Amino acid sequence: MLVVMQEGAEEAQTQNVINRLVSMGFIVHRSSGMLHTVLGGVGPVGDVDPIEFEVMPGVKECHRIVSPYKLASRHFKPAGTRIQIGDVEIGGDQVVVMAGPCSVESRDQIGQVAEAVAASGAKVLRGGAFKPRSSPYSFQGMGEDGLKLLREAADRNKLLLVSEVMDQTQIPLLAAYVDILQVGARNMQNYNLLRELGALRKPVLLKRGISATIEELLLSAEYILSGGNYDVILCERGIRTFENSTRNTMDISAIPVVKALSHLPIVADPSHATGRRDKVLPMARAAVAAGADGLLVEVHHDPDHALSDGAQSLYPSQFAELMNQLRIIAPAVGRSV
Amino acid sequence: MLVVMQEGAEEAQTQNVINRLVSMGFIVHRSSGMLHTVLGGVGPVGDVDPIEFEVMPGVKECHRIVSPYKLASRHFKPAGTRIQIGDVEIGGDQVVVMAGPCSVESRDQIGQVAEAVAASGAKVLRGGAFKPRSSPYSFQGMGEDGLKLLREAADRNKLLLVSEVMDQTQIPLLAAYVDILQVGARNMQNYNLLRELGALRKPVLLKRGISATIEELLLSAEYILSGGNYDVILCERGIRTFENSTRNTMDISAIPVVKALSHLPIVADPSHATGRRDKVLPMARAAVAAGADGLLVEVHHDPDHALSDGAQSLYPSQFAELMNQLRIIAPAVGRSV
Amino acid sequence: MLVVMQEGAEEAQTQNVINRLVSMGFIVHRSSGMLHTVLGGVGPVGDVDPIEFEVMPGVKECHRIVSPYKLASRHFKPAGTRIQIGDVEIGGDQVVVMAGPCSVESRDQIGQVAEAVAASGAKVLRGGAFKPRSSPYSFQGMGEDGLKLLREAADRNKLLLVSEVMDQTQIPLLAAYVDILQVGARNMQNYNLLRELGALRKPVLLKRGISATIEELLLSAEYILSGGNYDVILCERGIRTFENSTRNTMDISAIPVVKALSHLPIVADPSHATGRRDKVLPMARAAVAAGADGLLVEVHHDPDHALSDGAQSLYPSQFAELMNQLRIIAPAVGRSV
Amino acid sequence: MLVVMQEGAEEAQTQNVINRLVSMGFIVHRSSGMLHTVLGGVGPVGDVDPIEFEVMPGVKECHRIVSPYKLASRHFKPAGTRIQIGDVEIGGDQVVVMAGPCSVESRDQIGQVAEAVAASGAKVLRGGAFKPRSSPYSFQGMGEDGLKLLREAADRNKLLLVSEVMDQTQIPLLAAYVDILQVGARNMQNYNLLRELGALRKPVLLKRGISATIEELLLSAEYILSGGNYDVILCERGIRTFENSTRNTMDISAIPVVKALSHLPIVADPSHATGRRDKVLPMARAAVAAGADGLLVEVHHDPDHALSDGAQSLYPSQFAELMNQLRIIAPAVGRSV
Repeated sequence: MLVVMQEGAEEAQTQNVINRLVSMGFIVHRSSGMLHTVLGGVGPVGDVDPIEFEVMPGVKECHRIVSPYKLASRHFKPAGTRIQIGDVEIGGDQVVVMAGPCSVESRDQIGQVAEAVAASGAKVLRGGAFKPRSSPYSFQGMGEDGLKLLREAADRNKLLLVSEVMDQTQIPLLAAYVDILQVGARNMQNYNLLRELGALRKPVLLKRGISATIEELLLSAEYILSGGNYDVILCERGIRTFENSTRNTMDISAIPVVKALSHLPIVADPSHATGRRDKVLPMARAAVAAGADGLLVEVHHDPDHALSDGAQSLYPSQFAELMNQLRIIAPAVGRSV
Repeated sequence: MLVVMQEGAEEAQTQNVINRLVSMGFIVHRSSGMLHTVLGGVGPVGDVDPIEFEVMPGVKECHRIVSPYKLASRHFKPAGTRIQIGDVEIGGDQVVVMAGPCSVESRDQIGQVAEAVAASGAKVLRGGAFKPRSSPYSFQGMGEDGLKLLREAADRNKLLLVSEVMDQTQIPLLAAYVDILQVGARNMQNYNLLRELGALRKPVLLKRGISATIEELLLSAEYILSGGNYDVILCERGIRTFENSTRNTMDISAIPVVKALSHLPIVADPSHATGRRDKVLPMARAAVAAGADGLLVEVHHDPDHALSDGAQSLYPSQFAELMNQLRIIAPAVGRSV
Repeated sequence: MLVVMQEGAEEAQTQNVINRLVSMGFIVHRSSGMLHTVLGGVGPVGDVDPIEFEVMPGVKECHRIVSPYKLASRHFKPAGTRIQIGDVEIGGDQVVVMAGPCSVESRDQIGQVAEAVAASGAKVLRGGAFKPRSSPYSFQGMGEDGLKLLREAADRNKLLLVSEVMDQTQIPLLAAYVDILQVGARNMQNYNLLRELGALRKPVLLKRGISATIEELLLSAEYILSGGNYDVILCERGIRTFENSTRNTMDISAIPVVKALSHLPIVADPSHATGRRDKVLPMARAAVAAGADGLLVEVHHDPDHALSDGAQSLYPSQFAELMNQLRIIAPAVGRSV
Repeated sequence: MLVVMQEGAEEAQTQNVINRLVSMGFIVHRSSGMLHTVLGGVGPVGDVDPIEFEVMPGVKECHRIVSPYKLASRHFKPAGTRIQIGDVEIGGDQVVVMAGPCSVESRDQIGQVAEAVAASGAKVLRGGAFKPRSSPYSFQGMGEDGLKLLREAADRNKLLLVSEVMDQTQIPLLAAYVDILQVGARNMQNYNLLRELGALRKPVLLKRGISATIEELLLSAEYILSGGNYDVILCERGIRTFENSTRNTMDISAIPVVKALSHLPIVADPSHATGRRDKVLPMARAAVAAGADGLLVEVHHDPDHALSDGAQSLYPSQFAELMNQLRIIAPAVGRSV
């Protein structure tokens, strides 16, 4: 903790800050040679919000100098995490593509889509059985029946399966069917859910909230890691900005930023980030060019009749074209697809 | 649904859109006199995302013309909702102030704070027993013991009690102790929680998410209302923007905007919006001047030793000063405090 | 400048940073007792961007500890600036209301509006003669003829006059007619304009850019102050956020934030911030309740036929109602209207 | 113009809107079969802000259905604009890379950098002679002497030259030295400057403002095009969001969005978007993968001693590496480098 006193702060104010730091367990180093007295505190962090000091009389500003997350930091594991599931490795040399419909709708639908994406080179099938919808009047998903259909389609096409868990009560159910449990953007700070996932021994795909900073994303990962579950995959899926020509603004720079700060793999979801089919290919290519470890892409065999998110679902032929483009791009970053 | 075709769109493209609208149950009105052909669809909405049409060939843009929420709209109840709890009315002539510490920490603490805020004119005691914290290493609240202390302190000072529910499994516990269940900003789109609260017969205070639009806030309220629970109080508590001199940017204009769109009462939380004690008084005054039905303010008898959010907690003397200022301002909007 | 080295940074990396600081003229204090070595540099600032150090090997982060602005800081003039123009004082005990149409359109129009706002208590007439319009096909203002009409209407009603200057070549023209030169939000970082205004001896009203931080606003003020023109009035007029129920999001908290950081007066413009007449009254009240030194409000005698910004212009009767409400609110902050 | 009346709007209110549309020159089509009466107006646009109608009694919402820009729209020139300057074509089959230092500092500096970037395959030299700086105390550029040095270095290395013009008074000076005049982000809405550039017959590189929507960027281009200068190159260089791990958030999706809406070429500037050298390569690759027509990259032979923006300048060896990566990626989008 670095506390910078105001120019001309009174000695009593400085002492007051020192006393508070000490009472919180910090060892304090004082540097008074400068225009501004600076107090450096070494000690137990995580808990202390710099604003607590910034509102004290005589204080100009305060900075936390130890990251509030530890297990998620690159420093903790410089080589980078590789998550092995069956014969698929996430965070390794291959860019792993996860594809499928927004929601599972029927055996026929999921079967057709799974076959198509497997044929083009996807390694993981995605699809929702429980859907968080902003309107209470929208389709809410098939539930457990959907999970069964997803598992069946994945197995038939030798794909892994990822699907979303909406709250902690659903964890056992999801864990019985899927290979990777997905935490949606709206749940990124559902701490009871994160804590329970920390106790699980299955990989978790954690999506960034649309208004979450990268530090907050890593703090949410820390919840899971601190429970002993080290297989966390991060996912960039767009942030909310003033620009509304796409549904969200895909923050491609989050990919190299996360790579520098953390050892965890990061994938990108251009479908939700843009909300429009015609922007998915360019943004998927951009994510891989920027160094993403994988992609999450919505594909539907008949998007015009999809029960949800049809507008952002690729036709199977577009998905095949995308995979071909990625095969050209990946070598530029030392990867294959 | 209004679909605007591109200038020079082909007739087949227009027919394609018409067919899709019809297949979804819309009755279609076509207006071809204009430069752009416009298709107006009357029918079942809520479900249909305009982007579904915007990605169709030949379409320029698409607008939903029926609000996606119904029960929450001002049109549904033009006179405005007044929620009566004991002898307190929220949404009525009086500005209702809810005050108390971020977290309950001990009988002594909550007792002192409750007495102070009651003496200054607060009508509701606020305080958290379960705390959503962005770091897994932070204080997580006292749990049910805290609820007991809160209830006791509220009763002793003839205050109502509001406290946060973190997920749907906690609803019965909270409902046993509090008068108003608070849904935190991070949970504004936790739909399983909202749905369960719709089945409850206790008032709910629903906080706006830091990146939620006002339309999304009203859609979340719709989840609760559509379950039959009509006693929903909205709360503006700051949105995330590029400006970081305050923790969030308090969107004061949300107050008159909500008043025009909805019949539900809206209160404001200047403590979380600004994150800093020295900005709470000006923003609390601003909220009341803009027409807020109430305030949610953090007060602590000893903020320097608070276990959470001390920096944004008022000293009791500041709270008393605020109440006096509000007594001057409220008549400008035809209210009292 | 505070440079925090990474945990485990090599000594050579630390020396490298020290050498660079020294070569830039800083005197360096080293504090190595902590987990992270911290280097504090005292010296010539303004010029040095912290990122310059953050990209050096071994550096974790870097903070500037001296504000990049000096003359604009509260520290430079703790008592606060009061700008006296004729018998009007801006930044003093009275809330000063500046009102008038978006653009001057005719002698009849400006005469009617000026008379109405003067009768209700405005002290300054506002109106544009040169209009920055986002479309090249929109009305661009009356030019010098408009300035003459504005001056005439102001004098006849004993009002001061404020009007916008669009670039530095227009300064002499504007200065010949107006009492206060307004810099629009889009020009907040037009440094050639700011520099020339620094050489002028007339008050300047500087509007915050829609994506400018408060620090950037104060830096732009510094450009004018550093030229020797100390009469700068700041203006909050809304920032761009994701919320679009109003044109911009009026950042009411900017008012107390500026009051703490700077000695300069700050006024608020609820007309441009909201873009809608029906939100102007609540936001104007909020600004005064938060401590604004004044308001800039658009009023038109016939808004439905205004050549620009009619939607955000108040009817004269609404303006009169607003002034009455402000007379109730101002005493809560120790002011009059 | 589409005006949607509220459910239950009175006939007199509807007539009022019709009358206003007619008085503005619109021909009105009325569609009353729907729940909401919809009025479609065909007529003179550009000038009319939808809010003008939204504040009228009985109106629910209003949408402009003709784009406010015409000459900049893809519809105006479906094939796409290719700008030929010497033997370089911007908007054609080759991705054009513009590289060089932030500011020209000396003959030696610009000579070394120009030689290095030319050797790696850049086609255009970039470098500023006039610098817009947020602090009045920062280095402001070498002025005309700098332009001479830039021209000399460009010629010696067979490069074109792009440099920034800060206001309309500088146009003749810049035009005498450079091949492309750059308009900086802060000047994107400096309409007097844009208008004068419309009268010029040299290409203009127009940077997107950090808070400008894509529609606003195209409207600013329209100012130049409407003056008869059709050689406008757009540039994405990052927008301001809540995320601050990079200086701005580079909106890669702006590239495909602009490609769909407009015929103008678009390049990307990863140096200013990220502000940090270590993020430039990934973002440059992403931009090309997303379909950018070119790049603007800062390179310095000795970034640690650069007078401005050293932190975001690549070392020549990094630039060479980037060009090699781009040669792999470009074929995925049917381009070469």
